[in-house]
Amino acid sequence: MLTSSVISELKAIVGSGYVLTDQEDLIIYSNDATVFNHLPAAVVQPANRDEVAAVVKVAAARNIPVTPRGAGTCLSGGAVPLKGGIVLDLARLNKIRTLDAARKIVVAEAGVVTFEITSQAAKLGLLYPPDPSSLKESTIGGNVAECAGGPKGVKYGITRNFVLGLEAVLPDGTIVETGNAVDGDMCGPDWTMLITGSEGTMAIVTAVTLRLVPMPETKKTMLATFDRLENAAKTVSVTMGAGIIPTTLELMDNLSIVAVEKAVRIGLPVEAAGLLLIEVDGVPSTVEENARRVSEICRECGAMEVKIAQSAAEAEDLWVARRAVAKAFGQIAPCKFAEDSTVPRSLIPLLVDKCLEIQKKYDLPMVIVGHAGDGSMHPTIMFDKRDKDAVARAEKALDEVHIVTLELGGTLSGEHGIGSAKAPYLRAEMGPVGYKLGQDVKAALDPQGIMNPGKMFNYEGALH
Amino acid sequence: MLTSSVISELKAIVGSGYVLTDQEDLIIYSNDATVFNHLPAAVVQPANRDEVAAVVKVAAARNIPVTPRGAGTCLSGGAVPLKGGIVLDLARLNKIRTLDAARKIVVAEAGVVTFEITSQAAKLGLLYPPDPSSLKESTIGGNVAECAGGPKGVKYGITRNFVLGLEAVLPDGTIVETGNAVDGDMCGPDWTMLITGSEGTMAIVTAVTLRLVPMPETKKTMLATFDRLENAAKTVSVTMGAGIIPTTLELMDNLSIVAVEKAVRIGLPVEAAGLLLIEVDGVPSTVEENARRVSEICRECGAMEVKIAQSAAEAEDLWVARRAVAKAFGQIAPCKFAEDSTVPRSLIPLLVDKCLEIQKKYDLPMVIVGHAGDGSMHPTIMFDKRDKDAVARAEKALDEVHIVTLELGGTLSGEHGIGSAKAPYLRAEMGPVGYKLGQDVKAALDPQGIMNPGKMFNYEGALH
Repeated sequence: MLTSSVISELKAIVGSGYVLTDQEDLIIYSNDATVFNHLPAAVVQPANRDEVAAVVKVAAARNIPVTPRGAGTCLSGGAVPLKGGIVLDLARLNKIRTLDAARKIVVAEAGVVTFEITSQAAKLGLLYPPDPSSLKESTIGGNVAECAGGPKGVKYGITRNFVLGLEAVLPDGTIVETGNAVDGDMCGPDWTMLITGSEGTMAIVTAVTLRLVPMPETKKTMLATFDRLENAAKTVSVTMGAGIIPTTLELMDNLSIVAVEKAVRIGLPVEAAGLLLIEVDGVPSTVEENARRVSEICRECGAMEVKIAQSAAEAEDLWVARRAVAKAFGQIAPCKFAEDSTVPRSLIPLLVDKCLEIQKKYDLPMVIVGHAGDGSMHPTIMFDKRDKDAVARAEKALDEVHIVTLELGGTLSGEHGIGSAKAPYLRAEMGPVGYKLGQDVKAALDPQGIMNPGKMFNYEGALH
Repeated sequence: MLTSSVISELKAIVGSGYVLTDQEDLIIYSNDATVFNHLPAAVVQPANRDEVAAVVKVAAARNIPVTPRGAGTCLSGGAVPLKGGIVLDLARLNKIRTLDAARKIVVAEAGVVTFEITSQAAKLGLLYPPDPSSLKESTIGGNVAECAGGPKGVKYGITRNFVLGLEAVLPDGTIVETGNAVDGDMCGPDWTMLITGSEGTMAIVTAVTLRLVPMPETKKTMLATFDRLENAAKTVSVTMGAGIIPTTLELMDNLSIVAVEKAVRIGLPVEAAGLLLIEVDGVPSTVEENARRVSEICRECGAMEVKIAQSAAEAEDLWVARRAVAKAFGQIAPCKFAEDSTVPRSLIPLLVDKCLEIQKKYDLPMVIVGHAGDGSMHPTIMFDKRDKDAVARAEKALDEVHIVTLELGGTLSGEHGIGSAKAPYLRAEMGPVGYKLGQDVKAALDPQGIMNPGKMFNYEGALH
């Protein structure tokens, strides 16, 4: 609970209509796209950077937790106000401040929906490649905080690779600008990369400077089907090993193919053990050549069929299918552990083999799908939480997936962030010295621990 | 001075032959490639990571400054032991631990000479793109500490863009591993980027995991000459604006052309106001097409001549000329301020215009040369330090170059690091809040201030 004097202070900053304290509003802002939730004491909706800074100053003076929130599509619990306090809803920071075609940069406020950036850039013949499934709802501030990925990560990289600079509010309410519009060059350490992926635990991002790239001249979309999932995985590593860099290289297993086909009815091969959705882009001659070479590799690796989309509509159908995966999960079981285990690209076959083993061992449906070309897989363990035995098996299976991922030199989060879902495992990934380094830096920046508390380096649960 | 008991402790760790305290040895390790210098109390040459950690533990226990050193080719004073103490010579950490063609990564110890990595990767058909002029002498640890660049930065990026992970010794002597071999993905903030570019002030890098890329199939090297330097600069921004990304786009002005031609005698156009050395690489069809388009753009922007190298030998001659620039400076004047001002690529013409103005205003030779396509220029102010008036004008000119660079949204250091040369300007670039953030993090990691003291966030001189 916040005292009425604090509420008044907050209302004086943002206007009384932008401080929400009614129970029904608090409930809406108590969760994100995960199972985690906690009620905030108030939701504050600042209009701009200076209001964000003023709100954080009030919070710092009174030791009130502040959890920033974009569209709330987070898949790890990053936007859940675990310790109550203020949810800082950044949706009103929705201006694109600069879109400069000559310099190929965009400066967008944190609350701008990512698709708005993609669309505005496209009008100038430029591409903003990161394309999380939540693209049309999630905000660029949220994408930066959680370091979102997407299918195009294979060729272009994830959000992190496109952030040149940030404007952010530090835990004491001062405003910092990091980086610049020069690609990769700066004096000293890259402070932008300390805040990117920090989920609002180090600072609250209010604006982002992003790098754009020229729009590729043309592209080709292909669908390869396999009677063994292992062969699809092998195709991924052979393709990447051959020096071809497709734009996307998405893998779907039979469970997901069947579930999606039920949902979208576009004639997916429901008998296939796995499929690869492959796109290549660039100048026409290279696209033609790469499509031919990728088709050959698919066949050499045992594909039953390789189909090239004959029209933009046919290509779009395939993408509709891919994006329908998450929504189709519900048909398999009501609950899921949706992982984003990421390993070096060449080790995807090993990760898939291990997931198949774990699936058998614990006798649970596990959907194996993901941005395979990027090494970022989504082994999703499905269960019904009313079945206690299934829950116990799901938890053990989850642990094994994590262990395998780290053993393969990978990371537990390729794109969903840490939140509550990964916090218990963060030390296992970073090592004890690395985790302590994170704790030390967090304590230096946020000695009161008011920024998105209970997450990341001040997680209070048991560590693996 | 170190006590004999400390010297004994150090000898017990690394072996008595690897602790140098003779005056002539200390003098050799008192400077780098700049005018700055300070004698260390001892030079310690550890053989491996564990010895580095043990030495740092001794230093931490006794409050002894530690300055790491690679090959000492630093152009900013980064390797100079400003506060004496221990110079930690990392040259014996010279093993390539892993070179994995399938995963396209190399893990090299800090003391490996960068060219060794380039060469070993090339044998497997892989490219390590960062190519500082010091490539054949400088070490990968030094490149990471100072964030070295090079001509290929235009297309591929600088050192920072290729570092996936680090092994480093923290100021308390613990060993941390940051990042992983997965390109860009990790849980939380990118700690690798806190240490990269930190010049040994946060941690001492002992090994580096680098990303490699497929070797381009072919390349073409071109030389365009201009009768106005402004036209050469304009060509850079028009080329980049047209969506063509050359491998290199190097600019040289008349002063440097004349000086280099005197040194290497390969028939450079000594009457030209400026030239561009351009390389394009990739698959043959794209290289052919891009070379044609770049030639056209050069002519449209007023090039007097565009010559395409007809053989590998002719291309190599051009690169010999470019690499001879730094050594040829001495013919112009005995002293220099060698800047690495970097601005957004599209603003190169503005930076060049301003440099020409500053040159006139202060009536001093200024060589304007650099990795123009990358935005990274080297406006080098030449003077004779015995001429007090020239020194005063050179200092004013230097200040103006810095101000212009920051006004254009650039950075004062594209590739040389901070050292003593840029430390006074670091706050001007980062802003007061950003600089304090850096100080806070530095204090959290290194509360005793023993790591490369007197630099970066514990610089003790006047700040601009």
